[in-house]
Amino acid sequence: MIREHVGLEGGRAYDIVIGEGLLEQVGGMLGELGVSEASRHLVITDANVQAAGYLEKVIASMAAAGYVAEVYVIPPGESSKSLPLAGEALAFAYQCGLDRRSAVLALGGGVVGDFAGFVAATYMRGVAFVQLPTSLLAHDSAVGGKVAVNLPQAKNIIGAFHQPLCVVYDTTALQTLSLREMRSGVSEAIKHGAIRDRDLFFWIEQHQEGLLANDSSLMSELLARSCRIKAQVVAEDETEQGVRAILNFGHTLGHAVEVLAGTYTHGEAVAIGMVAAADLSVRLGLCAAEEAVLVERAMVACGLPTLIPNELDEAELIESMRKDKKAAGGTLTFVLLREIGRVEIVEDVPESAVRDVIRARREG
Amino acid sequence: MIREHVGLEGGRAYDIVIGEGLLEQVGGMLGELGVSEASRHLVITDANVQAAGYLEKVIASMAAAGYVAEVYVIPPGESSKSLPLAGEALAFAYQCGLDRRSAVLALGGGVVGDFAGFVAATYMRGVAFVQLPTSLLAHDSAVGGKVAVNLPQAKNIIGAFHQPLCVVYDTTALQTLSLREMRSGVSEAIKHGAIRDRDLFFWIEQHQEGLLANDSSLMSELLARSCRIKAQVVAEDETEQGVRAILNFGHTLGHAVEVLAGTYTHGEAVAIGMVAAADLSVRLGLCAAEEAVLVERAMVACGLPTLIPNELDEAELIESMRKDKKAAGGTLTFVLLREIGRVEIVEDVPESAVRDVIRARREG
Repeated sequence: MIREHVGLEGGRAYDIVIGEGLLEQVGGMLGELGVSEASRHLVITDANVQAAGYLEKVIASMAAAGYVAEVYVIPPGESSKSLPLAGEALAFAYQCGLDRRSAVLALGGGVVGDFAGFVAATYMRGVAFVQLPTSLLAHDSAVGGKVAVNLPQAKNIIGAFHQPLCVVYDTTALQTLSLREMRSGVSEAIKHGAIRDRDLFFWIEQHQEGLLANDSSLMSELLARSCRIKAQVVAEDETEQGVRAILNFGHTLGHAVEVLAGTYTHGEAVAIGMVAAADLSVRLGLCAAEEAVLVERAMVACGLPTLIPNELDEAELIESMRKDKKAAGGTLTFVLLREIGRVEIVEDVPESAVRDVIRARREG
Repeated sequence: MIREHVGLEGGRAYDIVIGEGLLEQVGGMLGELGVSEASRHLVITDANVQAAGYLEKVIASMAAAGYVAEVYVIPPGESSKSLPLAGEALAFAYQCGLDRRSAVLALGGGVVGDFAGFVAATYMRGVAFVQLPTSLLAHDSAVGGKVAVNLPQAKNIIGAFHQPLCVVYDTTALQTLSLREMRSGVSEAIKHGAIRDRDLFFWIEQHQEGLLANDSSLMSELLARSCRIKAQVVAEDETEQGVRAILNFGHTLGHAVEVLAGTYTHGEAVAIGMVAAADLSVRLGLCAAEEAVLVERAMVACGLPTLIPNELDEAELIESMRKDKKAAGGTLTFVLLREIGRVEIVEDVPESAVRDVIRARREG
């Protein structure tokens, strides 16, 4: 079992626990965290995770420790991250008698984590929240307290900063992931290397085969190293007033591609976005051309896409990026590469340069 | 102009500014607060406030200071505090191009403040929020950062703590309030006296005639003194982990009466709740009978109701109180009186005592 600590002010520091078979130990962990047995708690999950048998483990572990768990199951997929569905979950929580000392547990991938986190953040103005990620991609979203649901027009527009009480990562759950899901998760780990840890970046490329085959010890190392970077950046700037925005490397274009195409995983879209951001960095004179080549090489090695689909309209991409949450006053804001392991936030990037990158990086 | 300071940690301290004609100065105040002119902003109000001409003043003042203000008008009344309507306002904000540096201004009473605050708290995980209260009751809700919408079953279940950047109280706006609205606002001021300031409590009873007639200097004094108590309590315990709950004096039964009857203003329901809580305090041996008599006398002097409507079912009242946000594990939690000016939070109040109070305090 590996334990990474996320240092936050105001008594809100928490641990990320990584290891095999941890879902069977959730009940005991809640006890150690001081979660009340007098209140009812809510496990939110999706139908796929339920079918995989993880929900059963969590409920059994909680029951053994004396906890009453209610269950709310959402349909799998991004479309569940809607305000109406969150409203239904909030009403369900109230009907079940959840109170201010109740905890909401998110058992699933990033969608479940974001959705359940939003429910936890807004139920009675905020109750305790525990992340139980079951996907590799969720190693990113589970750390840092960003929770949200989507507007039909754009992702994550409605949300909050709501830090978990604990993140419990049972690596056993990763065994049922598809290769595509593994690649999507590796993409966010590559991003953490690209922004803060050059060694990690190349370590991932070097070990991609074992990682994508879900080698247990490699995977634990990846999760610990990648979560550590995320946790450090979050601790420096919890509510994204400044440096935290570097975590959005690849996300300006990535989000636009994800929303407009609708066929990419988050990690795939971010991979396209990172390669484009590296190209943009070179064009703006911030970074050597060789570095951008290395970024693209790492994505290709991990089987991630690197080109912008032809069917996406340039003007719509630009429009979507201008409405990005990181942008202010409709400007184009990007996280750009200085070298692998070091990035900077650039506001007001010239639209012409962005258009050049879009044209240059088409599937062709 | 009177300025009360709310001291909060983490650079989130803010001022409550009270005076005549302040709505015409909103634009300049936003400038002083550093609100960006490059971003668009959103004024949320209701149709009544718009009809009274206040919206026009705010927009003109903002325009004169170089701000672009979008407007979202909600129907007047508690039913607007719904998650679906909040979703529409959030989508509108996005369509208008609001970004992270945008501000949401709440122009109206408590409903508008709670609703707009929830929009501000959740839009892009939180944007700046300015309170422009136009009712007397809102002097309570505008200070303290509690924002929320309702579930159909219960009030304020979906919400957040989101502190305003500033509260601007134009006392001119109080001139159009009905006597019933004035009384409802006075009720929360009496509550502030009852929990922390014995002098204020009796000062209100003594000056009720002038206050209800909206004497300008009395009103400014009332607002300043009442907001000061609220601000002090909030600064001691921003997210209601402990002492802040004393602000719920009269609210356990008050909320239940308000929701179940549907015909009382918030202040009226809280008045009934305060008298009942004082009675309960006496029955539990916490407070001298004379004090409870004085609480009832003050309500009567101000023309506020003090008895529980006969048509409300006892079991439903109990059930509603057990689901109160302040309660944990379905227990009955009350803020009880030790003497006027001093209260304490009591968890797990015996149901039999609460039932006795309900029976004793029926309209008869």
